Amino acid sequence: MSDGARPAPHVFAVFGGAGDLAKRKLLPALCRAAMADRLGEGTVILGIGRDSEMTDDAYRQLVREALAEGGISEADQDAWCDRCVYYQSIGDGEAQDYTALRVRIEAIEAAHDLSGHRAFYLATPPGAFAPTVRGLGGAGLNGGDGTTVRLVVEKPFGHDLESAQELNRIVHDHFDESQIYRIDHYLGKETVQNLLAFRFANPVFESLWNRHYVDNVQITVAEPLGVEGRAGYYDGVGALRDMIQNHLTQILTLVAMEAPVSMEADAIRNEKVRVLHSTDPPDPDDLVRGQYERGTLDGQAVPAYRDAEAVRDDSTAETFVALKLNVDNWRWKDVPFYLRTGKRLPEARSQIAVTFREPPVCFFQDAEAGCDLDTNVLLITLQPNEGFDLRFQVKTPSTPMAMSPQTLRFRYNEAFDSLPDAYETLLVDVLQGDQTLFVRSDEVEAAWTLYEPLLDRTDVAPYDAGTWGPPEADQLLEREGCRWRTP
Amino acid sequence: MSDGARPAPHVFAVFGGAGDLAKRKLLPALCRAAMADRLGEGTVILGIGRDSEMTDDAYRQLVREALAEGGISEADQDAWCDRCVYYQSIGDGEAQDYTALRVRIEAIEAAHDLSGHRAFYLATPPGAFAPTVRGLGGAGLNGGDGTTVRLVVEKPFGHDLESAQELNRIVHDHFDESQIYRIDHYLGKETVQNLLAFRFANPVFESLWNRHYVDNVQITVAEPLGVEGRAGYYDGVGALRDMIQNHLTQILTLVAMEAPVSMEADAIRNEKVRVLHSTDPPDPDDLVRGQYERGTLDGQAVPAYRDAEAVRDDSTAETFVALKLNVDNWRWKDVPFYLRTGKRLPEARSQIAVTFREPPVCFFQDAEAGCDLDTNVLLITLQPNEGFDLRFQVKTPSTPMAMSPQTLRFRYNEAFDSLPDAYETLLVDVLQGDQTLFVRSDEVEAAWTLYEPLLDRTDVAPYDAGTWGPPEADQLLEREGCRWRTP
Repeated sequence: MSDGARPAPHVFAVFGGAGDLAKRKLLPALCRAAMADRLGEGTVILGIGRDSEMTDDAYRQLVREALAEGGISEADQDAWCDRCVYYQSIGDGEAQDYTALRVRIEAIEAAHDLSGHRAFYLATPPGAFAPTVRGLGGAGLNGGDGTTVRLVVEKPFGHDLESAQELNRIVHDHFDESQIYRIDHYLGKETVQNLLAFRFANPVFESLWNRHYVDNVQITVAEPLGVEGRAGYYDGVGALRDMIQNHLTQILTLVAMEAPVSMEADAIRNEKVRVLHSTDPPDPDDLVRGQYERGTLDGQAVPAYRDAEAVRDDSTAETFVALKLNVDNWRWKDVPFYLRTGKRLPEARSQIAVTFREPPVCFFQDAEAGCDLDTNVLLITLQPNEGFDLRFQVKTPSTPMAMSPQTLRFRYNEAFDSLPDAYETLLVDVLQGDQTLFVRSDEVEAAWTLYEPLLDRTDVAPYDAGTWGPPEADQLLEREGCRWRTP
Repeated sequence: MSDGARPAPHVFAVFGGAGDLAKRKLLPALCRAAMADRLGEGTVILGIGRDSEMTDDAYRQLVREALAEGGISEADQDAWCDRCVYYQSIGDGEAQDYTALRVRIEAIEAAHDLSGHRAFYLATPPGAFAPTVRGLGGAGLNGGDGTTVRLVVEKPFGHDLESAQELNRIVHDHFDESQIYRIDHYLGKETVQNLLAFRFANPVFESLWNRHYVDNVQITVAEPLGVEGRAGYYDGVGALRDMIQNHLTQILTLVAMEAPVSMEADAIRNEKVRVLHSTDPPDPDDLVRGQYERGTLDGQAVPAYRDAEAVRDDSTAETFVALKLNVDNWRWKDVPFYLRTGKRLPEARSQIAVTFREPPVCFFQDAEAGCDLDTNVLLITLQPNEGFDLRFQVKTPSTPMAMSPQTLRFRYNEAFDSLPDAYETLLVDVLQGDQTLFVRSDEVEAAWTLYEPLLDRTDVAPYDAGTWGPPEADQLLEREGCRWRTP
């Protein structure tokens, strides 16, 4: 964990600096961090793109528009853009282009009296990762000469185990693992970061956090959106690669990990990777792939996935995945971890539901009703309306012993002013050199190993848009006497 | 536990029927229960007193005034008083007076077509208990002849072990224990009743409910009132007898007891008495007796206890008690139970605070601050604003790993319309024949046994009215590294 001190001033260079991710997320996050004095004083932003016609002024105009779109005031735009934003073309990415980049950076550093702290953010399509890394390495932009260089890599990191291994090899040819920040923006969310604090600062929960008390764990990331606009990319990827292998698996490791030796980045990542090493690939029967049909969402008719532009009529890309994992270690043996994600689900919701075991003796209900409907559940809502709900039983007043399910409740928005943006958190961490919230090479490979046997599957169960997925997803739990906690 | 069915119609006879308790609590509770159809259809109330001049009509007028005072509408008064309220004088309590009572009850039963279900409530000063029991027994009003008789006894039940044993012997000469309902009105409070449901319907809490996870338990019953008006009685009694031996000890047994064999009354009372048998009398050093001095409450100057009318200038009656108990059984060994009650404390508050043990490793704070300030605490508020608060730690947003104490919260008044009155609950239970919430003879004797060695103490530590008791009460906890959870 970082000590929260203000980082050194950097040249923060963004490959894909005029691209969608930069405009929507990175530039607003950097500007907000700067305005909050969370960047090093005098930090410079250098947008990098293929457009060799783009001038600094034209880029600043583009940045201004992105900031305005991100709700940042004109005053803050003025204070930031003119002072510290530049643009550099990388042309076709030839060696001389990277040399030119180096010269430009050195000129900026000289002009701004900066001391060689550099971060390169690869906000480019996956195909550009390897060439960019080689280009940086070739031009000596990978550290040395008294510079400190950090490399930030966006998802996807590979599309299977082999490609991830290959990418790691290339990156490691030019950079040390300690320089590499593989982004999983879910890890930047306040509520996800809080998982470790929640577990290891609160003995009441950590004491229950094992097979003796937990019946099952469910991780859900649901979104109502379809693939419109992204279908060309998505159709070759699907939900398993796009969501499960990274975001949901990262959450799983934070929920399931042992207490780390310390709160240092590598101590935490050691424990996360141990979870993955304790987990076998899902049994084929424990994976449900779904694809949405036409349906209704918020009262509006929405088209089927296969009707989207750029999607083949016979596409078998999965827009929904539900699966069961067994973390076969001393703590979790026989506690199923259910992961579920999908598009065109009824609402946007990311949550972790920890369902506790039933009381061993059922005092308070007649035998027919059973106890299972009223089990204790801890619901950790990652978004929206972030918070915790512990479902528990209270005696219904004026009855002898009838139980009423109630909730012990906490909401972030009632306790804190606002939650920081995930990208802002992660970018500041990069500049502080804190790797805690970034995925290490062995983690990413272990996660691919887990899902490797399932990547070729082509079966898809249809579900109506606006529902919680195909019936097969419910059956996955029902056959073990469980049910999804929805929401 | 009762099944909640409507009880049989009774003659409900109240000794002390024109007294303070009857007017303030019993009559309004009976009327409300009747209006809510919780009494048997046709139940008759028979007020009993020494006043031989009082007529039925005069008594009904007195009852009306009590009901009006209790916030009951004139329409409800009309519907109830004229139909089913009677008065009978017991004169000087001679044998013929009880015979006359019997004749009167039989006449009422004949007139109302009732089948001999009778309840006698002894809302009289303690000195009248034994004669009344003997009188009822002598007149054959203790059951038999096809009648079903229940006897309700108010506190105090004795003033020490010997007097309680003597009273039990007298009662048992005439009544079977299954007929006897020793009232502790704290047990009728919804939140106190819910303790068993809370513990045994919620494995998340019951799993933590032992020496492995709990650091200490605190039971506080605080009141801002002084003794005005009651001083004549109170000065001979004190807080240990008036509050600790009954109310706080009853709460202790519900918090500490093992899971009962069933939810039947005797199964629960068996476990409660086992707690008392596992508990040794407090060490003399573990008892703090306090007496309030002048002070300020809600901005108003209030007089000292010894300045109250009917209190001796050198009175050593304790208006405050704090003590430590050790429940030396497998579950609770080495977990201190701290009990505290007092008059002229800053606010009215009855609560149970279960403080959990610290995390074994303190990741999130620097070594100097330590972890103890931020321990998990479950606060069960019995009154006012009844509910549960689980104090836990959340990562403060935008910080690397600074903790912020927050609360998982539940309030009855946000989940339910209203909580029933304790007396209403208990009176209905009597009529249903449910003894769960009443104190059994062995319980009352075991509770007296616990405090017997301390009853003669005369030391009192002064405290200012409007404070949380004498400093000695704080030292009691501080010497073990604890502190009172206030509030």
